[in-house]
Amino acid sequence: MTARLPITVRYAETDAMGVVHHAVYPVWLEAARVQWMDEIGLPYAQVEQQGINFSVIELFVRYRSPVRFGQVILVEASLTELTTRSVRFDYRVFSEDVPCAEGHTRHLATDRSGKVIRLPEAVYQKLLPHVQSR
Amino acid sequence: MTARLPITVRYAETDAMGVVHHAVYPVWLEAARVQWMDEIGLPYAQVEQQGINFSVIELFVRYRSPVRFGQVILVEASLTELTTRSVRFDYRVFSEDVPCAEGHTRHLATDRSGKVIRLPEAVYQKLLPHVQSR
Amino acid sequence: MTARLPITVRYAETDAMGVVHHAVYPVWLEAARVQWMDEIGLPYAQVEQQGINFSVIELFVRYRSPVRFGQVILVEASLTELTTRSVRFDYRVFSEDVPCAEGHTRHLATDRSGKVIRLPEAVYQKLLPHVQSR
Amino acid sequence: MTARLPITVRYAETDAMGVVHHAVYPVWLEAARVQWMDEIGLPYAQVEQQGINFSVIELFVRYRSPVRFGQVILVEASLTELTTRSVRFDYRVFSEDVPCAEGHTRHLATDRSGKVIRLPEAVYQKLLPHVQSR
Repeated sequence: MTARLPITVRYAETDAMGVVHHAVYPVWLEAARVQWMDEIGLPYAQVEQQGINFSVIELFVRYRSPVRFGQVILVEASLTELTTRSVRFDYRVFSEDVPCAEGHTRHLATDRSGKVIRLPEAVYQKLLPHVQSR
Repeated sequence: MTARLPITVRYAETDAMGVVHHAVYPVWLEAARVQWMDEIGLPYAQVEQQGINFSVIELFVRYRSPVRFGQVILVEASLTELTTRSVRFDYRVFSEDVPCAEGHTRHLATDRSGKVIRLPEAVYQKLLPHVQSR
Repeated sequence: MTARLPITVRYAETDAMGVVHHAVYPVWLEAARVQWMDEIGLPYAQVEQQGINFSVIELFVRYRSPVRFGQVILVEASLTELTTRSVRFDYRVFSEDVPCAEGHTRHLATDRSGKVIRLPEAVYQKLLPHVQSR
Repeated sequence: MTARLPITVRYAETDAMGVVHHAVYPVWLEAARVQWMDEIGLPYAQVEQQGINFSVIELFVRYRSPVRFGQVILVEASLTELTTRSVRFDYRVFSEDVPCAEGHTRHLATDRSGKVIRLPEAVYQKLLPHVQSR
């Protein structure tokens, strides 16, 4: 399953080069990841209410083509790895079929104190059918 | 007492107009407010550990002269009103003596659930001698 | 004419108090203002291509009720003042009919060098029919 | 040559998990990179005035230990690769000797239109003596 989230570029997201600043992309990837979880019926807000966080331990982005204010981009997110304690998501960013960026994040399941935990069986089983090869 | 915090403008804080985006200024004002609390010996992190937040209820900024990447600005913060439940801070932003912006914020004391509370007497007494007329 | 922009709160927009940070609201107001200009047929990206900026000279926000991750809020924007050189927009932020915040921004028309200019007649005439009383 | 930039964590940089949001780190890395260029006598603002940008084409961050409001962190930046058209910087983030994160960015030299260019000889020669092995 791949979530596809359209995002209207905000003026605040641009920088003095006239394009979107590179630190904005992780925010977009996160929004698409949240959308993905909504779509499989496991809203991230509900996961957090159970005391579970998906703490980011790794972020990678390759930037291919700059994005500008006034564009509507599409961010795709897929779950590409799942263990009892971790997940990986992969992402692609498009502007009208032009690939703009791609990347991935890795996350550890942690409790509120930041300690690594095993995903509850119900959460793991909800994620499992949606793992997709890269 | 007026806190004076020098801030080196970050590239990420600029926008496509080539100047610092207006939504960055509240972040700078907050940094100066935090510096002010450090300076009077009441670090905001410690206030929060007691379960107290200074929730922002009002923000005003007047922008006079744009700020650019590569500049070092100075942000001044002063406590200008104090009640048992609220505070007001006033701010000025300078770039080498050129006034760039000014503004204020109002805050209510709240507990972790967001409920308005009375400031603990010790906190109130710590703030009181530093109230300054506008 | 009032533009109404739904915004899904991003996790990155929250802070350690568990609610959306107050510096995010100006970004949302701007997004609604951009939406307003799209709706009257004067996209801000096109205005900028003519070398005109609506430089923010004043920002005011009153925060009424905190917003959390997982909520979808609605931001309303209206043009409430228009002169040959300036505009004012007023805003309201709702979460399912609960008023969360309101505010306004004032802008001067400037050229690329930051100099205040007169709005081109075509731009002024496009804006004029949509001015709304506060 | 390694630049070492102390950064006081801003409240606005935290998220609802109570720690600094992962999208803030690229902003910090950039600030340390800018500091590095200041220290070798090639301020980035001056590079840009010559019409040259160091466009980010790759970002990698590994997060080891969360950072909280109230901490002062140290960000180290070094130039680790240099070609006539590209640079790579490597970074480490510490909180009182505890490694919090590390990462790298890759950049292409581009002109104002975004076209890849050869670094001017003077810029290249200024950078060359400071390349450091990873």
